[in-house]
Amino acid sequence: MQCAWRPLSRLLSARSYQTAWSRSQSSPAAGRLDLSGIYPPIATPFTTKEAVDYQRLEENLQKYAKMPFKGLVVQGSNGEYPYLTEDERVEVVRTVRRTLPEGKVLMAGSGCESTRATVELTEKMTAAGADAVLVVTPCFYKGKMDSRALIHHFTKVADSSPVPVVLYSVPANTGLEMPLDAVVELSQHPNILGLKDSRGDITRIGLIVHKTKTQNFQVLAGSAGFLMAAYCVGAVGGVCALANVLGQELCELERLCQSGGWEEARILQQRLIEPNAAVTRKLGVPALKQAMEWFGFHGGACRSPLQPLTEAETQQLRRDFSTNGWL
Amino acid sequence: MQCAWRPLSRLLSARSYQTAWSRSQSSPAAGRLDLSGIYPPIATPFTTKEAVDYQRLEENLQKYAKMPFKGLVVQGSNGEYPYLTEDERVEVVRTVRRTLPEGKVLMAGSGCESTRATVELTEKMTAAGADAVLVVTPCFYKGKMDSRALIHHFTKVADSSPVPVVLYSVPANTGLEMPLDAVVELSQHPNILGLKDSRGDITRIGLIVHKTKTQNFQVLAGSAGFLMAAYCVGAVGGVCALANVLGQELCELERLCQSGGWEEARILQQRLIEPNAAVTRKLGVPALKQAMEWFGFHGGACRSPLQPLTEAETQQLRRDFSTNGWL
Amino acid sequence: MQCAWRPLSRLLSARSYQTAWSRSQSSPAAGRLDLSGIYPPIATPFTTKEAVDYQRLEENLQKYAKMPFKGLVVQGSNGEYPYLTEDERVEVVRTVRRTLPEGKVLMAGSGCESTRATVELTEKMTAAGADAVLVVTPCFYKGKMDSRALIHHFTKVADSSPVPVVLYSVPANTGLEMPLDAVVELSQHPNILGLKDSRGDITRIGLIVHKTKTQNFQVLAGSAGFLMAAYCVGAVGGVCALANVLGQELCELERLCQSGGWEEARILQQRLIEPNAAVTRKLGVPALKQAMEWFGFHGGACRSPLQPLTEAETQQLRRDFSTNGWL
Amino acid sequence: MQCAWRPLSRLLSARSYQTAWSRSQSSPAAGRLDLSGIYPPIATPFTTKEAVDYQRLEENLQKYAKMPFKGLVVQGSNGEYPYLTEDERVEVVRTVRRTLPEGKVLMAGSGCESTRATVELTEKMTAAGADAVLVVTPCFYKGKMDSRALIHHFTKVADSSPVPVVLYSVPANTGLEMPLDAVVELSQHPNILGLKDSRGDITRIGLIVHKTKTQNFQVLAGSAGFLMAAYCVGAVGGVCALANVLGQELCELERLCQSGGWEEARILQQRLIEPNAAVTRKLGVPALKQAMEWFGFHGGACRSPLQPLTEAETQQLRRDFSTNGWL
Repeated sequence: MQCAWRPLSRLLSARSYQTAWSRSQSSPAAGRLDLSGIYPPIATPFTTKEAVDYQRLEENLQKYAKMPFKGLVVQGSNGEYPYLTEDERVEVVRTVRRTLPEGKVLMAGSGCESTRATVELTEKMTAAGADAVLVVTPCFYKGKMDSRALIHHFTKVADSSPVPVVLYSVPANTGLEMPLDAVVELSQHPNILGLKDSRGDITRIGLIVHKTKTQNFQVLAGSAGFLMAAYCVGAVGGVCALANVLGQELCELERLCQSGGWEEARILQQRLIEPNAAVTRKLGVPALKQAMEWFGFHGGACRSPLQPLTEAETQQLRRDFSTNGWL
Repeated sequence: MQCAWRPLSRLLSARSYQTAWSRSQSSPAAGRLDLSGIYPPIATPFTTKEAVDYQRLEENLQKYAKMPFKGLVVQGSNGEYPYLTEDERVEVVRTVRRTLPEGKVLMAGSGCESTRATVELTEKMTAAGADAVLVVTPCFYKGKMDSRALIHHFTKVADSSPVPVVLYSVPANTGLEMPLDAVVELSQHPNILGLKDSRGDITRIGLIVHKTKTQNFQVLAGSAGFLMAAYCVGAVGGVCALANVLGQELCELERLCQSGGWEEARILQQRLIEPNAAVTRKLGVPALKQAMEWFGFHGGACRSPLQPLTEAETQQLRRDFSTNGWL
Repeated sequence: MQCAWRPLSRLLSARSYQTAWSRSQSSPAAGRLDLSGIYPPIATPFTTKEAVDYQRLEENLQKYAKMPFKGLVVQGSNGEYPYLTEDERVEVVRTVRRTLPEGKVLMAGSGCESTRATVELTEKMTAAGADAVLVVTPCFYKGKMDSRALIHHFTKVADSSPVPVVLYSVPANTGLEMPLDAVVELSQHPNILGLKDSRGDITRIGLIVHKTKTQNFQVLAGSAGFLMAAYCVGAVGGVCALANVLGQELCELERLCQSGGWEEARILQQRLIEPNAAVTRKLGVPALKQAMEWFGFHGGACRSPLQPLTEAETQQLRRDFSTNGWL
Repeated sequence: MQCAWRPLSRLLSARSYQTAWSRSQSSPAAGRLDLSGIYPPIATPFTTKEAVDYQRLEENLQKYAKMPFKGLVVQGSNGEYPYLTEDERVEVVRTVRRTLPEGKVLMAGSGCESTRATVELTEKMTAAGADAVLVVTPCFYKGKMDSRALIHHFTKVADSSPVPVVLYSVPANTGLEMPLDAVVELSQHPNILGLKDSRGDITRIGLIVHKTKTQNFQVLAGSAGFLMAAYCVGAVGGVCALANVLGQELCELERLCQSGGWEEARILQQRLIEPNAAVTRKLGVPALKQAMEWFGFHGGACRSPLQPLTEAETQQLRRDFSTNGWL
């Protein structure tokens, strides 16, 4: 029977599930960069004088190189990119490129408020070695950032970008959610590959997958808290702050979801929710960097105005890891 | 057949971490009402003069009786209960009780703004035949409805209720989300069985399941848009407006999730998101009732101030069903 | 004496622009109930068993009778009306009517969720002695309470009400703001006199006065925090919880605004902001009742689920009064 | 001349309460820059290729020079500063300095996300000729921008700034409101002069004036919609987008408020609300620039992603001016 609702490969059942979508990587998106997998949006270490600490960055990168990540996101929200100069943003990407093992995807954040600045930074990021760029929604004039403006913006950027573009919607920081109709329209652009969605409205994520599937548009969960559910409704991976800390575990969660180990996946997912919330919306980048220290990475301080955790916050953070068996 | 979703299977793997809650799988839930399954929160038909139309209600009930629902929710948000008098609320429950086949669960909404009124209505609902009561968060003084007030309220209601209590959090209507810590504390009350969560924050749902599992607390998805994802993270069923219209399909989605048919489940889930949004947050109860008419049930008009759909809204509603292959 | 606040004085200057509405200043408002002045939205005292304490209510009323209030609002949000039965709501109004001195306005809250219930309660409130009814926006189905629904609802209620209707918009409780276009349209109904606006968006209040002035629509500030500013942009009075506690002072603030004593008014207004916030959005009805006790009125406990203040809250409340020189 | 709005007149009446703060009226403000008056936050004209059009900017400045403004704000939200490079930001300020008549205040926006970038840009703005800097709240990590972080940030900036600092809170763009306690604490810094508040919560504005009066902290209304009310509760001026279009009228409104012409002020204020809303939250900077064209200034296009008005929006804009007698 002809069924209107899928890439044919989606009809197959559970176990053989992976084979199906691994096969499906072929046609509609032929030649498209396959984004599926887990990415840490890496933190930027600073010296005590708030300069970028490239040495410590490289030491972190060497540790990440041993994990089964699909790649790294550089200059996502957790990278404190709004606190870096343009030169620093590019230099960090260049540094990561040098260190990143063959075959890993380097996705660089190149979003700026204006279209022209985004176009320019996208070029620089490409020259610095990005395989793809992650472009956040401009947000200062949020009242005017309707579908018309966002479609215009992302189309211009994608038209001129030498590498594929991934849309990035992160309302907790921008106060703006990318409208569904804009996502659907932009999914048709040949140089726009997918979306990182950090809000985690699972109904919306399911609907985006549904309405863009003829484009083989790739949706990435923007946080570890809903990673399993996102896989469940059709996402292909995750860009998760927590992967800076528990990278191996997130890759394991991915593997379980991919291989149909839902029971184990659920148990693992549930244990990750509180640590993830702690290093993201509850306590933010300073908590992420503190937790990195506990787990053997270089986190260190943030640039001001981000403040170090208070003692009470540090205890809360520790509790959110320890009560879930991670510390 | 091995069923993937039973508590038993939750015991597997992940080492010592599980021991604590595996110990608890025994007693507290012993003999507890099993809520797992799909429930339509039934609509209330009215005559052209806005009187409750008990005859049409019974005709709907006869149709629902043939579907594999776990039971019915009477006086959920879709039942227009805030527009019914107390006598009408009770009489509708009594009518459903008379018609409901043996073995189906009748869950009756008995929530009022004051604790005393809720206690009284809970008794009346029990006398009218409810197997359990669904108690919405009071919300008028939302600034004061913190965990302390809500724990006090639900504890008083559960202490005195002759039947088990299910918590009901529906921020789209109440402007208030039940705080996580209140849910966790209330989950320990022997007469509080579970929670209907209508917002659909899947991270929160996963965390609630995680933090209440020693109580075998039962979480029900309050909308069809995130039903599959909710199953995925540990919910046991759904109370879904859309079940008034596509009841068979929602029971099929449940079956697929239970039996591990994730591929088919995903395809079905995705086709249900837009119709579900149309009859809930987008166009509300008038749309639900209109769609019921199209699918052979009695919907009819709402009580004022709810207005009939405009022509444009009716077309939008039709489109949301037809583009997904339902009309 | 020249009074700054009469419609007549609005006619001055600004050339031809005014002609249109100056023509209209004549008839429509003729004979209309003049709402201008201060009203306490009275609290409902309860016995220790949570029964309405009519005796203490009357003792409060005798004290209020000596103050230069324009009248009383009975069953506003501070009266805990959602916690009263319909019979109690009516009986409280009847009690107030018996006690209220000649010439004072009794405005009774008669709003319910459904239009039919509101129509019926309005009739009962009139029979119990209300001079006008204050009708809150229905709000449970807030997604559907657009201008069309609200215009329909209030028109039906006003059409059938034996006494004039005052619209009531209180988003802090209802999660819903009455849309501007609905207010403007409803201002043309001969039986709708005005609006109590409790949110305090002063730009919106100014615009409502501006766009309804041909109807001589009367806007009342719904909170003491913005009373002076509301007078400044054209409001005619206030329904202020704080008037239960500092009634004399609010009437003095009114007098200063009316007589052009802006300097003194400003000083007085500023001292009232924190006490007002404390008994409204910060600490709510329990704080209002506690403060009433301090100032010689009967406040007492609230009905559950409203909880008594904690010790820390009581101290905060006291501080908000004492640092402003009231305790 | 008796002027209602000077600090001196604040000393009157209201008994013993005033003594405390009357004592403080002396020194701390001595020699401080007086901010009182009206400022247009000027728009930045662009060429058709989106380059800054310095020529047209100067032509606008020559027109503004003839109006009784207190000064100009350069790089406020309406100046599209997030779309300018740092060099452009500074060059625009330099251009304004060259053109601005003696005695007018040049307030330059120097806010960036990081503290270090803000400190640096503040120095450059000073070198370019700024008399004071307007520093917006950093906002990307809004969940972490609590009082502690903001107090740290603004203190660092004010400590190092060669010119006085004005705080800038504009939640419509930043999604973040400066907490009251942070404002009160920062008001004590000798190099922090005041606050531009663009949200317009008049209760809050009154409270800020009240709680900072010992510092003679100067509050500026950030929008024309609540300018009169802000004067009423103690603000000293306004930074109003609409002053780019109806500058003379806003200065007249200021004069009326200062001289006690409240009746005329109210009529004028009411006529300005809709045009103001149109060029700010409703239709934004593109509408401001369109209206500038109608009133004889150079507005022109915005930088992308801000889009030109649609035909329907242009008509709406025209209507908002014409129905209030301005076109």
